[in-house]
Parts: sequence; structure tokens; C-alpha cells
Amino acid sequence: MTQERFRTIWLKDEITVEVIDQRFLPHRFITVELTTCFDAVDAIKKMIVRGAPLIGATASYGVYLALLEIQKGDKPTEYINQAFEELANSRPTAVNLFWALDRMKKAVFSQNTLEEQLKSAFAEANQIVEDDVETCRMIGVHGLPLIEEIWGKNGHQTVNILTHCNAGMLGCIEWGTITSPIYQAKEKGIDIHVWVDETRPRNQGANLTAFELTKHGIPHTLIVDNTGGHLMQHGMVDLVIVGTDRTTRQGDVANKIGTYLKALAANDNNVPFYVALPSTTLDWTITDGLKEIPIEQRDQNEVKTVFGKLDTGELASVLICPETTPAANYGFDVTPARLVTGLITERGVCPASEEGLTRLFPEHKR
Amino acid sequence: MTQERFRTIWLKDEITVEVIDQRFLPHRFITVELTTCFDAVDAIKKMIVRGAPLIGATASYGVYLALLEIQKGDKPTEYINQAFEELANSRPTAVNLFWALDRMKKAVFSQNTLEEQLKSAFAEANQIVEDDVETCRMIGVHGLPLIEEIWGKNGHQTVNILTHCNAGMLGCIEWGTITSPIYQAKEKGIDIHVWVDETRPRNQGANLTAFELTKHGIPHTLIVDNTGGHLMQHGMVDLVIVGTDRTTRQGDVANKIGTYLKALAANDNNVPFYVALPSTTLDWTITDGLKEIPIEQRDQNEVKTVFGKLDTGELASVLICPETTPAANYGFDVTPARLVTGLITERGVCPASEEGLTRLFPEHKR
Repeated sequence: MTQERFRTIWLKDEITVEVIDQRFLPHRFITVELTTCFDAVDAIKKMIVRGAPLIGATASYGVYLALLEIQKGDKPTEYINQAFEELANSRPTAVNLFWALDRMKKAVFSQNTLEEQLKSAFAEANQIVEDDVETCRMIGVHGLPLIEEIWGKNGHQTVNILTHCNAGMLGCIEWGTITSPIYQAKEKGIDIHVWVDETRPRNQGANLTAFELTKHGIPHTLIVDNTGGHLMQHGMVDLVIVGTDRTTRQGDVANKIGTYLKALAANDNNVPFYVALPSTTLDWTITDGLKEIPIEQRDQNEVKTVFGKLDTGELASVLICPETTPAANYGFDVTPARLVTGLITERGVCPASEEGLTRLFPEHKR
Repeated sequence: MTQERFRTIWLKDEITVEVIDQRFLPHRFITVELTTCFDAVDAIKKMIVRGAPLIGATASYGVYLALLEIQKGDKPTEYINQAFEELANSRPTAVNLFWALDRMKKAVFSQNTLEEQLKSAFAEANQIVEDDVETCRMIGVHGLPLIEEIWGKNGHQTVNILTHCNAGMLGCIEWGTITSPIYQAKEKGIDIHVWVDETRPRNQGANLTAFELTKHGIPHTLIVDNTGGHLMQHGMVDLVIVGTDRTTRQGDVANKIGTYLKALAANDNNVPFYVALPSTTLDWTITDGLKEIPIEQRDQNEVKTVFGKLDTGELASVLICPETTPAANYGFDVTPARLVTGLITERGVCPASEEGLTRLFPEHKR
């Protein structure tokens, strides 16, 4: 990895895929080589890679790696079907994973010989990666004017952006979603400063967003999740941009727990609140996010303990409450569309409403 | 300590004061004996004791311990003046400390002989402690009907209360402020469940509130500070009660950072949001909390690291972000009166407004 060429997944050579082991960021920068389909499944299961687009890309290369293995063995169809199944089961709730595997299936089964399948799978996996890069780049192209406008209006003072969780390049391949406008603004010479919510319980803000902003040379300040409201009350935030895991057709946004609280504060202080998203996270089948999006409950130990680096350099978890105290761990919350200033997609920016969304995506008009 | 007699400061005998060393809660229950004025100063400085009323009580006993030492030495007036000075400097921003020391000065200097001073100081320190207990008890008496009303309306289903930070007995002597209505409701047989915000960065919710609720047998669940909004959206919170460090004459409330975000969520979901306070925290000299209350900025390492217990049982801090990432650590935020349903004081409950407050405290009418 160099600062110029910073991706989350890349080909080391034509038979080796390499990824960053994100479990140990920011304390250890370790890369892992994937040379078998099992390696890819394992990387997804163990959360060596995380983030929907990156999971999709890893699974896509997993299919290619499975085909490479067939060359050495026999029963090619049985083997490849098993590979698809194992990859699909690696993280069953990741919508993007199924979408990527569907693309890979078409690429593989449209070909007749193993050699053709191999060539086609390799090309398609590479294309899935490049498509994500382009989607994220376009989110940046459309989001950039929002930052440029503030920069122009405030007389070229630092633009302060607040974000929650990691919707950065580490969950994607390159650019990221919310970080894409930020990185593109930096390239234009705009002074940016990012308030990074630590994002308890898993601290993706402190661990990942702070790490990638450091790598990209973006000035930033870590804050606890409690702080954003105070900053907004005092004019210290110009813009909030967050990601989303699922967005309904009326523009309700499910994102990391705590996003709703920041949206309320933004609304109370007239701070623009934008959500950056690849259109693959739009769920056109549902309307009311609060009623229709089930919220995942995760292991209580994510709340009761915090993982990090000891003074000795060792990585460890510490318990922060009485042993017997139970904890609840809701992974996401829903921000109603009324609190969202706009949605930044790869096709442009639109109001968080069915009308706004279907103007950009007319194929989904009812 | 027994579960029946759980105070934060007590007389072991007539020459020894004992306190809980709160720095190691909930992982270690250690008590510390204070036998000299220096011990009292040290306990406050090192945050062995914390919370305005408890600091005041500790300092009061410190004066008494200083007088005990004089018996052994000479130059009584010089010695006692130095003791007052050292106690006053132990935590310069604690308003309650000065108020307690003023009471102790009157008690000491109204007497002529050392023997009388000693007797008077002992009585006054004990009275300061009992006054705090009574103030907190009365906050509970006035807060209890709010809980009883919900319990009655919901057909005796569990009443879910959310709180932020620790405004419990650990910051006071007994009862606490926000915990007083809760403990009294429990005594009345009302089913209570408390959602405990962990309260980053110092985790007073996870460390202290969860500890004292455990000790009092109150069912509770630890949550990250991001979670309250989601719970309120889904009808899982009946009542929010928080404490306050300073309240203005129009009812703006400065409390632990993040309180404002919970107030916004309560307001957005029609959940009653109450603030419990001893009238000593009312600052009648200021009106607009957002403009007039300066917000303390604390050490960034409180944000960058988290303290807790390792698997080995050792206590340690872990770093959660890149070494070079800076952090901002605002200690408090201001919740505007418009978001506060009511103030629970030792004289009763009132709207968060100048009119409401001066009806309970007519001596402060302008």
C-alpha cells in the first residue's frame, strides 16, 4: 500500500488476492493473501473484510479462486456450485454479496470451457471492483458541489464536516461513499476538517474513519458520539454526511445506531444533513423505514467491552461495567426522511422523498 | 457497606472518616480511611470522591479532621486557615465545595475554644451530610408521582426510565438526585427498568450508575449513548430523567455532554424529559445557558482511551484510534428549557422557566 494507491482489495498477481485485515486497524496494518475460495469465505466470516461493497468484491474473487482450484481437481460443476453456496453463506444478510454472486454466476455459466469460465470470472470480478470504484467516485462528483458551496459562502474558511461510523473507502474499494466528496474536495484545495464520531459500540469511527483520514492527510478530530449536538449548537459543523445500509423509497435511512440523534441535532440547528449512498442500497420494496426495517440486535459484549491497544502495544478488550449488568446492542436506527436534507447518489443529489428518488431513478416509478 | 446502609461517606469512628474509592468502580470496591485534613484534600484531588455534594461533605469532614490535628500541635488559627485554603483549592470549580466550606467557617469561628470549635465542626459536617440526604430524599418524594402516574396509566407494566451519566447516590451521600425517585418507586413496589447510557468519554453510566443500580437491585440495561433515540422511536422509554451541573433562571440545563441529544429525541417522540436537581445547582445570576455557561474542555486522552478490566482482572486503558489522531473533549452541553418537560427539586416539580422556578423559589423573584 502507498498513499497514492490505497485500495482495500487488490491482485498481488493473477492467482493471489490481497486484502487489509481490518480487525486490527488502526493499531496493526496487516495484509492477508487469499489464494483459495476457502480463504475468501474465511476473510468474510472473520470480518477480515467488512462493508457491503468490499464483501461483494471479496466473494467475486472467491469464485475466481475456486475456478483456479478446479484446474487441479475434478468434478468442476459440483465444485463451483459448492463454492457459490459457501460464499453466499459467509454473511447471509449482506444484500450486496448476493448481487455480486449473481453477476459472477452469469459470468461463469455463460461460458462452456473451464478456461473460458476462468477468463470470464476474472474479468467480471475485476469489473465488479471497478464498478464500485466508479460508483463511489461519482458520489464524490455529485457531493463535491455541496462542499464547494459552503467553502464559497464562508469566504474560504475551513469546512467542518461531521460523520458517524465508517462509510469510507475501507468499506468499499476506493473513495468510499461519504469520504468521496471529502477526498475530491481536498484534491480541489478546499480546507476540510472532519469531526469523527467514535461510533460506539464497535468504534468504526475511531478505528477506521480516523485511520483512513490520517492516511489521506485529511485534518480530523475524534469526538465521542455525545458531542455532535454541542458542536452544532455552536456553529462548529457546516455539514453532516453519513452513509446508509438501507434506504426506503420515501427516503427513510437506516444507518449505524446514533445517526438519528445527529439528524435531530442538525435539524434543530439548521445544519444540512446529507446521506451518501450507492443506489444498490436503495430498497424500492419498502416505504416506511421505522415500521418496515428490522433492526439487528448484536452481542451484548460489544457494548460491555471496548477493544484497543494497551500501553504495552498488545491488543486487548476491557470490561466497562459490572460483570452482571446486561447490555442491549441495537446495530442501526432509522432516520426519517423529514430530517434528511438530501441523498447523494452516483446519479446525482435528490431530496429524500419518493418523488426525488424516482426523478433520478425513473425505472423505479410506480 | 451493606445493601441496607449504602452511603458514599461515613464515620468509622469519631476520628476516622471512610469513603469509597470511586476510581475503581465497578471493578474494585475499595474504601479509604481519611484521618487527616491532607487525606481529605487528597481524596478530592485524586477523584477518590467525586460529585458536588460528596466533595462538599468530604471537605467539611476535612475541616473537622484539621481541628483534631491541632489538638496535637500549636498555632490553631493559622493551622485552621491553611486547612480551609487547601480544601478550597482541592477542586476550584466545585461551587458546592465553597458553599460547604462557608458553612464550616461559620461553625468553627462562631466558637471560642478549640474544644467548642471541634464539637461545632463535627456537628456541622454531620449536618451538611444529613441535609444532602434530606434534599435528595425530597427530590425523590416529588419525583415519585411522575413514575406512579405512568405505572397507573400503563396498567402496572414495567416503567422504563432512561438516564445519562451518574446523578445517583455515588455523587451524593445517599439516594442521589435522579435515582431518588427510582429507589422510592422500587420501595413502593413499582416495576422499574432503567436504560443506562454508558456516557462516554468517562463512562460514568457504565461504571457508576450500573454499579449502584446493581447494588440496589434495580433491573437495568446498559446501552451505548447512540441508542436512546431508537428506543424512544419504538416506545421503549416512558420517561427520561437526568441530572444537571448548573441550571439557569430560565431553566436551561447544563449537564454531561450528550444530554441535549437525548432531550431532542424525547421531544421528537413525546417522551417526558425531566431534570432532577438540588436547588444549590440553580444559578440565578444567568439566564441564557447556551450563551452564558462556559463549557469545560478536558484532556483528549479521555476520548482516545477507555479504562476498564482486562480478562486477567487487571485494570487498564486501551487506545481506540490512531496515535496521531487528535480528540476534542467537551465535558458538558446545554439543553434549552424548551426541551425540558419539568424540573424536579427538593421543593417540588416545576416547568423549566423563570416563572416556574420563581414560583417554587419566590426569594429569587426579580
